[in-house]
Amino acid sequence: MFNQDTICALTTPNGIGAIGMIRLSGSNSLDIVSSVFSKSLKDATSHTSHFGTISDNSGELIDEVLATVFEHGKSFTGEESVEISCHGSSFILQKVLAVLLENGCRLANPGEFTQRAFLNGKMDLSQAEAVADLIASQSKSAHNIAMKQMRGGFSSELRNLREKLIHFASLVELELDFAEEDVEFADRKELNELVNEVLAYIQKLAKSFELGNAIKNGIPVAIVGQPNAGKSTLLNAIVNEERAIVSDIAGTTRDTIEEKVIIEGVDFRFVDTAGLRETEDTIEKLGVERALKQVDQSAVYLYIFDASKLSIDQLKEDLKQFPNSVSQILVANKTDLLSEGQELKLKSSDLEMVFISAKKKESLEKLRSRLLKTINIEALNSDDTIVSNARHYDALVKAFDALKKTKEGLKTGITADFIAMDIRQAMFELGTITGDISTDDLLGNIFSKFCIGK
Amino acid sequence: MFNQDTICALTTPNGIGAIGMIRLSGSNSLDIVSSVFSKSLKDATSHTSHFGTISDNSGELIDEVLATVFEHGKSFTGEESVEISCHGSSFILQKVLAVLLENGCRLANPGEFTQRAFLNGKMDLSQAEAVADLIASQSKSAHNIAMKQMRGGFSSELRNLREKLIHFASLVELELDFAEEDVEFADRKELNELVNEVLAYIQKLAKSFELGNAIKNGIPVAIVGQPNAGKSTLLNAIVNEERAIVSDIAGTTRDTIEEKVIIEGVDFRFVDTAGLRETEDTIEKLGVERALKQVDQSAVYLYIFDASKLSIDQLKEDLKQFPNSVSQILVANKTDLLSEGQELKLKSSDLEMVFISAKKKESLEKLRSRLLKTINIEALNSDDTIVSNARHYDALVKAFDALKKTKEGLKTGITADFIAMDIRQAMFELGTITGDISTDDLLGNIFSKFCIGK
Repeated sequence: MFNQDTICALTTPNGIGAIGMIRLSGSNSLDIVSSVFSKSLKDATSHTSHFGTISDNSGELIDEVLATVFEHGKSFTGEESVEISCHGSSFILQKVLAVLLENGCRLANPGEFTQRAFLNGKMDLSQAEAVADLIASQSKSAHNIAMKQMRGGFSSELRNLREKLIHFASLVELELDFAEEDVEFADRKELNELVNEVLAYIQKLAKSFELGNAIKNGIPVAIVGQPNAGKSTLLNAIVNEERAIVSDIAGTTRDTIEEKVIIEGVDFRFVDTAGLRETEDTIEKLGVERALKQVDQSAVYLYIFDASKLSIDQLKEDLKQFPNSVSQILVANKTDLLSEGQELKLKSSDLEMVFISAKKKESLEKLRSRLLKTINIEALNSDDTIVSNARHYDALVKAFDALKKTKEGLKTGITADFIAMDIRQAMFELGTITGDISTDDLLGNIFSKFCIGK
Repeated sequence: MFNQDTICALTTPNGIGAIGMIRLSGSNSLDIVSSVFSKSLKDATSHTSHFGTISDNSGELIDEVLATVFEHGKSFTGEESVEISCHGSSFILQKVLAVLLENGCRLANPGEFTQRAFLNGKMDLSQAEAVADLIASQSKSAHNIAMKQMRGGFSSELRNLREKLIHFASLVELELDFAEEDVEFADRKELNELVNEVLAYIQKLAKSFELGNAIKNGIPVAIVGQPNAGKSTLLNAIVNEERAIVSDIAGTTRDTIEEKVIIEGVDFRFVDTAGLRETEDTIEKLGVERALKQVDQSAVYLYIFDASKLSIDQLKEDLKQFPNSVSQILVANKTDLLSEGQELKLKSSDLEMVFISAKKKESLEKLRSRLLKTINIEALNSDDTIVSNARHYDALVKAFDALKKTKEGLKTGITADFIAMDIRQAMFELGTITGDISTDDLLGNIFSKFCIGK
């Protein structure tokens, strides 16, 4: 079915380290390594490590190494494999790779080991994609999502749904063979129920993508508010370093400034924006527009205001310009300047707000926990599947559309051939997620994004 | 004798890669890994790999890993060891290290694995030091020297000599017990021969340090000559990139410019210097002084001159200012501007020179091979031991001095106790090389220069 030549690559990061590892996979792995190793590994048992030396073809010693052998069917790729642990000098690693190439290996393409694992049925496509996500994960939440996906929870659910659809599709298609007899093998009511069930499930998955994607790339949080409300000070307090330029001249921040912060294992991208002030200054006007746009692109926005100055009425007026679709957190800043009377008045309003002093770094923990609550962090820790891959989301949306057509068709009593076509379409889309359906283009596109050696 | 607690560290370079490896060593390695691994490794056979998962202490999955087990006595360190191959995400690797620390490991100090290998008698000190050199090696020659040293050629020769000295030292010391009887157990003539033999050998080793050190750090080659002779052009031609500023205004190069180039597997450091012109310009005068100093610090210097302008007499005059102690290569440049008559005249002189055109990059290969011949590259490829470590050189010089005293003592018929003392001193110095003699300070100093994880 595919190229079974033996590939090799450096699997550990570049740079000087105690150990660097080179991996081989393919039916000649043991032969090739044996031809340069101080002893033959051809009869070595799977999962055993062997100490020895590697020499080049002129017999010159390259390194003392440890070679670990994996039998066909028992390795990561499913093919015969060898892992060679060398001393971590790039000179040595290059020499070892060179002698392997001279003896019949080919340098692996990015992701080629994982691609072979997929093609050999060791994992499905969504699991293979999770391997790359796992390697790239830098926070607990991103790691959690990738790990769940790699362990196959997502795939097995999808496969369940797909099998049910296959069952009905076959029945519907059977009707086509008896088209002139006008029989119905597939119970339309049952089919309708199934379609509804699948639609609901797909919708739930697709909806989880918003969170999943945000977690993978960092949850975008816009910080907006009037000039001098303390936006930059808040950003600084959050990231705990002087990244944004802080001054008390109104309109200092014109470009948006972005900071990645990990709060309780979740990646956030905080974006400081220009002050929301009506202005004649063209550059600043652009900044305000950008701020509003930023809110639109965020999962949450923090509306920060000077609690010692702003009235509730004014606040309500200001908030009108923001879209309702984005979660909002009101941040009453400068509590250090606040009189007791002012505080009481604000607290008695019907608006929920978090009181902080960004300058004195007071009550920031309250803001953090409100933020975690707002993005529904509990969903992350539940066993619910979260879609984090744009390709999967895309396929889910397409499957959803096809199934909606099926549903309409069932309602309007459309003929079996159209229904069958729509179900097949949905099955196709779901199949591309797990790789039950795949094309070379699709695979090339997915695996080229991997690092070499994986 | 020393701390047997279990240590762990990341052994592969930092950064994102397909695989990152964590290594444990110490008597609790298997217990600790078993407590976080999905199966017990306590009864695992040495040199076997086990696929499973690692979870943190709250049972949350961290990664799917491959754990390879090494029994006490059969590992690199000589202790019970485990190597854990994880997905190469720094988040995962940090989490795995954290859970190992929580379960009783300690983070290893730099070089601590190799130090334990030394303390457990798996290698001597000079071999342990060669491990660090091997990892740092970036050229074939540096790699060769480190590999020979790690394989122990140097050590076994030293140990031989040392054993002979020990034999004589014991005999001489035996005489001390019978001091009043005036006997000689140690044949003075034989001892004298032995001392001569050892002296000659030590001298040969010490002498090899010049080359060994140069190879390890790059062989320094000064490029000197009159202004506009083409020094910078030659440097550029050699490194094949426009690193030095080239112009035809005399005196462009005032600071020395250094370039590392690997020629046939040997590291060279080419140093371009200021033109050697008598000058009133203070800055340039400093440059000329620096150039002469540079020659003094070099293994070889290239004296380059404009062959189309310089006469043999002038050349001989110019060469007088250079020290005889440094190897010299005369480079007749600008052959593209040379008439046949000029060339014949130069070639008929008694001076050996290489004709090139730096500008046209002509005949550079002749210069390269002359260079390799001059530094006696053959010595590298022979089986001769080359000392490349300053500490070893230092010990050899001290041993040499002590043995010279022994020799003098034998000549002047000094008493046995003084002779014994000198021999002991020489033995001590030779012993520090292999680590037969070692102190905590010495070990600390050596291993702190290692990278963590080795």
